[in-house]
Amino acid sequence: MSNEFVAKGVKLAKLPSDYGSTGFKMFKGSILNNVEIAYETWGDLSINNDNAILLFTGLSPSSHAASSENNKSTGWWEYMIGPNKPIDTNKYFVICVNSLGSCFGSTSPASINKATGESYGLTFPELSIEDIAKSGHSVLQTLGIDHAHTVMGPSMGGMTALAYALLFPNNLSNLIVISAAARALPFTISIRSLQRELIRSDPLWNNGVYKKDSAPLNGMKLARKLGLMSYRAANEWRERFNRARLPKSEDKKMFDIEFEVENYLNHNSEKFVSMFDPNCYLYLSRAMDLFDVAEHGGTVNAGLAKIHTKKNLIIGVESDILFPVDQQQELANGFSKAKKNFQFEKLNSIQGHDSFLVDTESFSKVIYNFFKD
Amino acid sequence: MSNEFVAKGVKLAKLPSDYGSTGFKMFKGSILNNVEIAYETWGDLSINNDNAILLFTGLSPSSHAASSENNKSTGWWEYMIGPNKPIDTNKYFVICVNSLGSCFGSTSPASINKATGESYGLTFPELSIEDIAKSGHSVLQTLGIDHAHTVMGPSMGGMTALAYALLFPNNLSNLIVISAAARALPFTISIRSLQRELIRSDPLWNNGVYKKDSAPLNGMKLARKLGLMSYRAANEWRERFNRARLPKSEDKKMFDIEFEVENYLNHNSEKFVSMFDPNCYLYLSRAMDLFDVAEHGGTVNAGLAKIHTKKNLIIGVESDILFPVDQQQELANGFSKAKKNFQFEKLNSIQGHDSFLVDTESFSKVIYNFFKD
Repeated sequence: MSNEFVAKGVKLAKLPSDYGSTGFKMFKGSILNNVEIAYETWGDLSINNDNAILLFTGLSPSSHAASSENNKSTGWWEYMIGPNKPIDTNKYFVICVNSLGSCFGSTSPASINKATGESYGLTFPELSIEDIAKSGHSVLQTLGIDHAHTVMGPSMGGMTALAYALLFPNNLSNLIVISAAARALPFTISIRSLQRELIRSDPLWNNGVYKKDSAPLNGMKLARKLGLMSYRAANEWRERFNRARLPKSEDKKMFDIEFEVENYLNHNSEKFVSMFDPNCYLYLSRAMDLFDVAEHGGTVNAGLAKIHTKKNLIIGVESDILFPVDQQQELANGFSKAKKNFQFEKLNSIQGHDSFLVDTESFSKVIYNFFKD
Repeated sequence: MSNEFVAKGVKLAKLPSDYGSTGFKMFKGSILNNVEIAYETWGDLSINNDNAILLFTGLSPSSHAASSENNKSTGWWEYMIGPNKPIDTNKYFVICVNSLGSCFGSTSPASINKATGESYGLTFPELSIEDIAKSGHSVLQTLGIDHAHTVMGPSMGGMTALAYALLFPNNLSNLIVISAAARALPFTISIRSLQRELIRSDPLWNNGVYKKDSAPLNGMKLARKLGLMSYRAANEWRERFNRARLPKSEDKKMFDIEFEVENYLNHNSEKFVSMFDPNCYLYLSRAMDLFDVAEHGGTVNAGLAKIHTKKNLIIGVESDILFPVDQQQELANGFSKAKKNFQFEKLNSIQGHDSFLVDTESFSKVIYNFFKD
């Protein structure tokens, strides 16, 4: 385990190399040596190896999607995964991988490069969503699983699931893409671009060379605040905070925070900054901007036509401003045009992009019904 | 003229004092001495003094709303104001004031405090939208105008026009509120709060003490980028930029910009930063968060019921995410409930909050028809 962000209970897969003795070939051509991927599992693999669900995550979560014997703390998708839950671990063997490039145990810019003894920082090669998909596929191989029952993910994880289906069309039966898109559009690119600039504008970032105790935490905090604003929806905040004020304080200075919503952003962004490595954030964020299904066939529709899963489920949320619902509609239209078997669920959750984390009722129902059949 | 941001052709009103010999009483109780307000005019005042249109601006523009003999450069609302234009200067005498607290000639945090010989910076008293309204009213008085034919404004200027109608209900006949609101809601508060934090996080801000040649320009640039993102609409950018890339460059480094939309944000934010004072930005931004019609009567509706203009025009744009159209609907509902004469125009312009600047056809038509009657 190469860094300090890793929680207990994580397993580690040393990836089979496809270049030289230790090399993992990146989508854009670079070779990365000694790649390890952190993952967690729930349930048991069937005798026929036909019940594996591979779950990719959004940008910021770890592989700890649900509690387990090894780590009893609540996971980021606790309501979804477990015995008799929508993803029923009495029936399925669930594997959640920490993305290549993320700091929760997988090889990333925060890892030590064995060749130099220093962390990679910006010497880490260009990262693509396809690399995360490929590393997930390799984890399955190390577990002796050639074919996934289902590959799925929300947000960046949905893009990664799409990339998996494009790169390994014969190695999955079903695909679930949640609050994701075939590619990022300019409003979303501008949000992520500004987030990266906020981190890079912090003098402590120092072109990616920093120590843990002098990391660019203020830049991370600002970037996270902008993230939180894009993850939720204006109307939810209106219901939740409206114009509620903080208690008056004697020593308040000009431009100190005044409103509950500002307090919420402060609290949540400060909680995050010490949990995530800034360089990893930059690499993953940029990978999302660059991903484009159209690179796998010339157009989005030509790319989607190459996917030949049995069933495809696409879920979108009408209040999502980061991955607007017409982007999930675009995926559905592409599957429709290619005469694929698909189901498109447009949910009216009010929590925006984050709905898959918090609108437990709507999401449980859709996922439960998918796996019930 | 107390600072370097002022364009030629601006007139200056020394405000009549309402406290001591030179004091202007601020809405929150402080006294500000020697207040001057920059303004520009177009057209001629009628013999009966009954054709004055008072125009308040958004946060960032100056009083230069249109070209004139004194300053032939294009104004920020050039298509709207002039002979035979929707606001017809053959018929009306138009006065646009630079907001109190803004750096284009009016007294502001960037002005020299005569008592100390230094710029006010953060010693400038708390600024309210009501102060901007009151200073506009005072400018009319110095021009010998007791009663405005119409008071109007877009964005922050719309809030200011509302404040004017609340503070001086007997000193105007008509009110036009464009892409504004009775008060800010949490999503918008969070955007502005983060913008202020970006400026304040720039080490060069130095608690508001900086020289022109060492101003916190990077903080301003970051804040402006976030502003630009909130001023436009995702779908317009999709049509305009989609995923267009910049030309490939040999010396491109990791995390340099890749997309046209990033280039647009860079270009437009860099253009802005040297044109606006950071402390002024902070004060005006905060004043918008704090403004609330409900402070003038207990509730928004009770406040609106106190306005007794002959005609009220409210304009909103469906793609606006900063002042969403249901906030203009709220104003219309309030006027309706109080049985006021009002017209509500919900426009389907695609350019978001900035539509009043660029959707010349839709806005010209509505404003033309209002003044035609």
